[in-house]
Amino acid sequence: MPYVKIEVTREGVTREQKQALIKGVTDLMTEVLNKDPQLTFVVIQEYDLDNWGHAGEQVSVLREKGITAERKK
Amino acid sequence: MPYVKIEVTREGVTREQKQALIKGVTDLMTEVLNKDPQLTFVVIQEYDLDNWGHAGEQVSVLREKGITAERKK
Amino acid sequence: MPYVKIEVTREGVTREQKQALIKGVTDLMTEVLNKDPQLTFVVIQEYDLDNWGHAGEQVSVLREKGITAERKK
Amino acid sequence: MPYVKIEVTREGVTREQKQALIKGVTDLMTEVLNKDPQLTFVVIQEYDLDNWGHAGEQVSVLREKGITAERKK
Amino acid sequence: MPYVKIEVTREGVTREQKQALIKGVTDLMTEVLNKDPQLTFVVIQEYDLDNWGHAGEQVSVLREKGITAERKK
Amino acid sequence: MPYVKIEVTREGVTREQKQALIKGVTDLMTEVLNKDPQLTFVVIQEYDLDNWGHAGEQVSVLREKGITAERKK
Repeated sequence: MPYVKIEVTREGVTREQKQALIKGVTDLMTEVLNKDPQLTFVVIQEYDLDNWGHAGEQVSVLREKGITAERKK
Repeated sequence: MPYVKIEVTREGVTREQKQALIKGVTDLMTEVLNKDPQLTFVVIQEYDLDNWGHAGEQVSVLREKGITAERKK
Repeated sequence: MPYVKIEVTREGVTREQKQALIKGVTDLMTEVLNKDPQLTFVVIQEYDLDNWGHAGEQVSVLREKGITAERKK
Repeated sequence: MPYVKIEVTREGVTREQKQALIKGVTDLMTEVLNKDPQLTFVVIQEYDLDNWGHAGEQVSVLREKGITAERKK
Repeated sequence: MPYVKIEVTREGVTREQKQALIKGVTDLMTEVLNKDPQLTFVVIQEYDLDNWGHAGEQVSVLREKGITAERKK
Repeated sequence: MPYVKIEVTREGVTREQKQALIKGVTDLMTEVLNKDPQLTFVVIQEYDLDNWGHAGEQVSVLREKGITAERKK
């Protein structure tokens, strides 16, 4: 009966992306641990950019400087 | 000095219900563990229905299908 | 589908007390919010006394000074 | 810069399964949200069976009754 | 690679105060544990006053009674 | 009445370091937000290296490769 919490910055995560995260994590729990999806909760918590800090800086400040958390190509 | 976090979907929980949860949990900590209420925190975190997943589906989708988390009569 | 986390210091909480907490919180979610117990998780996280701080002091130090978190009679 | 916490009962999850969960969740964050893996943390918290409750019962008791959280075949 | 979560009531915490908390905690992790700031996340979660309970009462009620969490002078 | 949780890998954090973290965070809450230390909890949660993932790898594996989370000199 897993409980999984995903914490991310609030930067336009769409309803479809949230559904994909929920589905993906639930499937993973079944594939890896054989857990019953009926007993798996996945929650997504979004934080305002002023409320998340990385390397001692607010993410809102990092974004103003053009620093993102996106995958490097 | 207990800390208790209650996580639920945001579906119209009233101020009175929140107070009842806080009072009920605090009393339980005193009854079962003899904890001083002055040292007990209870927090309630509400999630949008798009942000809670059960069985691989968003609760917002489950509700549209008429599936609730209410006690079966 | 509530998820409730109870955090306490590890000070001899018995199996029976844990069961009483789980039962008590689950019943409370049903009484106050009409939630289905089948969809309610309650978890208990215990912390070593060195790992919990109150008023800037480790609880292990507070206990050595005779300060407890018990209800005042 | 996502942070993901996976909470499960402590029932023999192997090192390889933990690695699969960490890899799977990290990949999912990249696929769905284009997040940089270098900025993704995944933590796994395991609970003793006495410390997890479902439907008002300790999981240790549920297991003694033969009730598991495994996927129904 | 520490992750630190600060939970407080939502009572007018300013952007500058949030930055000071993020900077202060990140520096502390470096001073005490020699952690790389690049691998330190600090998140701030604010709760509505109805959603935080102390001593069995909602903080919103405590505030109406003139009870604050401010340092005693 | 802040609650702060510090999550780190279990890599020999000493009792004195834990005390320094607890004291440092509590003082910070007072300095920045004027919070009463009597109403501030700080908890430290340590994770086994197999249970923390960064960039899709277990920290136990990263450490075997000589990769640390220490501050770069």
